[in-house]
Formats: sequence, C-alpha cells, structure tokens
Amino acid sequence: MVSSGFNKVISAQRKVIAERFKKIKHKIVIMSGKGGVGKSFIAANLSVALAMLNRKVGIFDADFHGPDVPKILGVRGNVLRVGPKGIEPVVAKHGIKVLSLDFMLSSDETPIIWRGPLKATAIRQLLAEVNWGDLDYFIVDLPPGTGDEPLSVAHETPGLDGIVLVTIPSEVSLLDVKRAATFAKRLNIPILGVVENMSYYRCPICGHIEYLFGKGGGETLAKKLGVELLGKIPVDTKINEANDKGQPYVELYPESDGAREILKIAKKLISKLEAVDERTTS
Amino acid sequence: MVSSGFNKVISAQRKVIAERFKKIKHKIVIMSGKGGVGKSFIAANLSVALAMLNRKVGIFDADFHGPDVPKILGVRGNVLRVGPKGIEPVVAKHGIKVLSLDFMLSSDETPIIWRGPLKATAIRQLLAEVNWGDLDYFIVDLPPGTGDEPLSVAHETPGLDGIVLVTIPSEVSLLDVKRAATFAKRLNIPILGVVENMSYYRCPICGHIEYLFGKGGGETLAKKLGVELLGKIPVDTKINEANDKGQPYVELYPESDGAREILKIAKKLISKLEAVDERTTS
Repeated sequence: MVSSGFNKVISAQRKVIAERFKKIKHKIVIMSGKGGVGKSFIAANLSVALAMLNRKVGIFDADFHGPDVPKILGVRGNVLRVGPKGIEPVVAKHGIKVLSLDFMLSSDETPIIWRGPLKATAIRQLLAEVNWGDLDYFIVDLPPGTGDEPLSVAHETPGLDGIVLVTIPSEVSLLDVKRAATFAKRLNIPILGVVENMSYYRCPICGHIEYLFGKGGGETLAKKLGVELLGKIPVDTKINEANDKGQPYVELYPESDGAREILKIAKKLISKLEAVDERTTS
Repeated sequence: MVSSGFNKVISAQRKVIAERFKKIKHKIVIMSGKGGVGKSFIAANLSVALAMLNRKVGIFDADFHGPDVPKILGVRGNVLRVGPKGIEPVVAKHGIKVLSLDFMLSSDETPIIWRGPLKATAIRQLLAEVNWGDLDYFIVDLPPGTGDEPLSVAHETPGLDGIVLVTIPSEVSLLDVKRAATFAKRLNIPILGVVENMSYYRCPICGHIEYLFGKGGGETLAKKLGVELLGKIPVDTKINEANDKGQPYVELYPESDGAREILKIAKKLISKLEAVDERTTS
C-alpha cells in the first residue's frame, strides 16, 4: 500500500514535470567524467553567453556536493521563495533563472550527506515544483562522474537535447571522460560536443605558452567520439578572480581569449539546436 | 529471514576485516571536498614517498568513478589473483601493494553505474577479502566529495588514524573542503593536516611566479581548522608527464620543488603518527 502510494506520487510528479518542460525549448546537460575540470565555470558562463545573445536562460545546478553556480553568478546567499505557480528560481543578471542546491543549505559548513535514493527523490521533487516559465535554454550542471546523481537527473529531465562534455587535456582525465561518454550512450542522449578547459597558459610577462595539463586531449576525445571540439579555454588567473568576485568572466573580461571562446561555443550550440527548430517548424 | 541472513554476512565480514587490519599499523585517508584537485596524485605519491622512507605501504584506490592510482603507479592493466589467504593486491615498485577498482573493470570504456548501496557492499567485501599482510601504512584514496562512498569507506575501515585534506588555493573550492572537514568531524576522525596542491606556477622561461588558482587558500583552511598546513605543491608540467608515463613523480623528479614537498609531507606524517606509537609502547 505504502509502495503503491509512493508510485502514484512519482507518476504525478512526472506529469507535472512534463507539463513545465513543454515551455522550455532546449535542454543541455554539462557533464564531465571527473570533478575539478571547471564544469560549473563552463555551465555558468555558457548560460551568461546565451543570455548575452538574447536567449531566455535557466540553469539548474544539480551538483549536491559542491554547488558552485550561485557563487560564480553572484547570487549566493539568496533563498528560494514560493509563489502561486511553485518555487521561484533566483534571478541573476541578464534575467538568468538559477536553481541550486546551495540555496537550500544552512551554512558553508554544512556537508551534504544525502544517500543516493534521497538524491533522486529530491531532484524529481525540485523539477516538479520549480516555476521556470518560458525558456529558450535550460542548462543543467550535472554532478561529476558516472554515478547516481547524473543518472537521476538524466532520467528525470524530459526531452534533453544533448550533452556537452567538459574535459582537461591530460590523459588520466580522458579515461574518465570516456567512461562518461559511454554512460551518455547508454542513456541514449546525444553528445553535442567537447569543451577542453585549461588547454594552455600564456605567461603574462614573457608570452611563453605552456601546456600545463598535457596537450591535445580534447581533440583526441572529440575525434574518438565522432563529435565536434566546440572550443579550447586557456588557464587564466582572471577566471579565478571573476569566480571569486561573483561576476561572470565572459562578461567581466569579454576581450580575453577564454571569453571569446565561450561566446563562440554558445553560438555553435545555438546554430546546432535552432537549426533543428527551423527544420521541424517549416 | 533474508535480512537477518544478510546482517549475519555483514557482521562476519566486519570480524574478518578487523582481524586483517590488526596487522596494519597506520591508516590514513586522503580526502577532498571536490574532484580534480589532484587527490589521487597526492595519495599515490605519498605512498611512494613513505616506501622510499622504508615503510611497508598499501594503497586502496576507493574512487569508483575515476580509479587513477594504478595508472600513476604504473600497474594499470593488472588483474587481481586469489591465493590461499584471499585476494592478493597488485605489487608495484618499492613493494607497494595496490588495490583499485580499476583492476575490476573490463575496459577503459566501461562506466561504473553502481548504485549507492551496492558501493558500500562492494567496499566491505573487498576489505574483508584482500590479503594486505603486515603493513606500516595503509593509504585510502577516497572518492571526492561528502557523499555515499567516503562515508562507506570511513565506516568500514577500522581504526583510521586520520584524514589528510587536499585542496587547491581558490575560494570556490574552499567552500567544498570546509564541507568535507565538517563531514570528517561528524565521523569523529581527526584531520592530520592540509595539503595545498596547484599552489603556484613558475614560468620555466622567465621565472615569473603566478598564482594560477588563487593564493593562500590552504593556509586559511588549515588555520580555520586548527591543523597544520603540511605542504604546498606547485603546478608542474612534469607531474602530468610522470602520471601519463606511469612513473611516480616523486621518484622520477626527486629534485623538483613538488617532489621535495611531498617527501617533507611524508616525513611529517611519520613523525606525527610514529611519535604516538612510541608514547603508547613505552
């Protein structure tokens, strides 16, 4: 009886989710095989780039262990409010709607010891209750790896367009990303392309270029998967500075190599996904 | 009935684990709040440093999503053999005994989609069945974050001496590590100290020093926790090169700043833990 009631709740939640997601045109998940490759930085700055290109954007920071998106977008410390249409996401600059597990934590010091099944329930409940409204793009910052959480998010988000895989150039990390790609294939979600982060570093004094974390990994991976290498973003101390300030790098340093590259990636995604729109609506 | 049988299995396994761990003098877990901070690199190279200082060392690579330790120690592609005393760990250079989930994967392409409860069972079973023999040091490379796996490993490994927290200097990452520290406190395991990785970078051409990922984070964290900052390891392209070659950095480039720092950290851990031995045995 309890179990059957629970199943009814789940199926009711899924109906609500499907209804809410009808108003969202494109859904992209940002994924990486391991943490620390700058996935959240890419997800947050891609959202800003899309908004700068006049798209209505929402971002779901689904990383339970280190929800960094609010910090990067300068909306940390906000709390979620409930309105007549459900939970209202926090609105950042450019009208970007932000939902993060960070908004539900009591303090910096609170660790999130949530067991796997609880996480899946929490994600489904959130997706059912948040009022995203009409959006052009819905960006999901998945937890790193190939475990429970990315699996749950992929299962619960209807109509995903595809995955953007973030990697760094070194070989050790590529192993992990290959696993992530297989994971994506098993879930039957297309890979839209690969972004290589921390590609190189240019010494600001002498101009010497160093490949700090190896070379060519993103290209090799993209070729291996038969997908496009969407862009290569260098190591830049300004990235760290912007993240810490809570001002998006792509907007604060638009002339930097990295920001130009992120804008280029956003344009590529738009042309990939909106070309499909035109074909299906004409 | 099934449940009670299962509980009997668990309690039998825990007895075997306790028996095996009596022969291991010190157990240290290497932990980080998030991935990609070089935790596996530190864990593997600390093991080598301890072995170079004539200690008998075993390392358990408990990272389900990206088991990198075998690659770094040059024993990738090995398989586990079963002997009369149980599963025999793979033996790397310096006699270091290595157990990794990587030895149980079929290929680079296989993702590990294991659900939370399965992971806890797998860890307990492994710890019960592996014949470590007599060891001075048992190093556990925990999965990143504050979720199911680090919790399981900490619960299942008897008599842990403490945690070494690995961080990078940037502020965003410190948030995560603070969560990890609270997690450690909740589990009642002492923190032996903080290691700051990717602390700085020295341009090999002009000598310019740049703080690529921020500055001072490790020190701030250590102070905040009231523990020692055990060492600061720079960004060094040789680290990536050594990892890719499967030759430990600390041994391949012993004169580098990073290798000297890792040896210093190993000596500090020895003096912390073996001083306790002397006090308790005298």
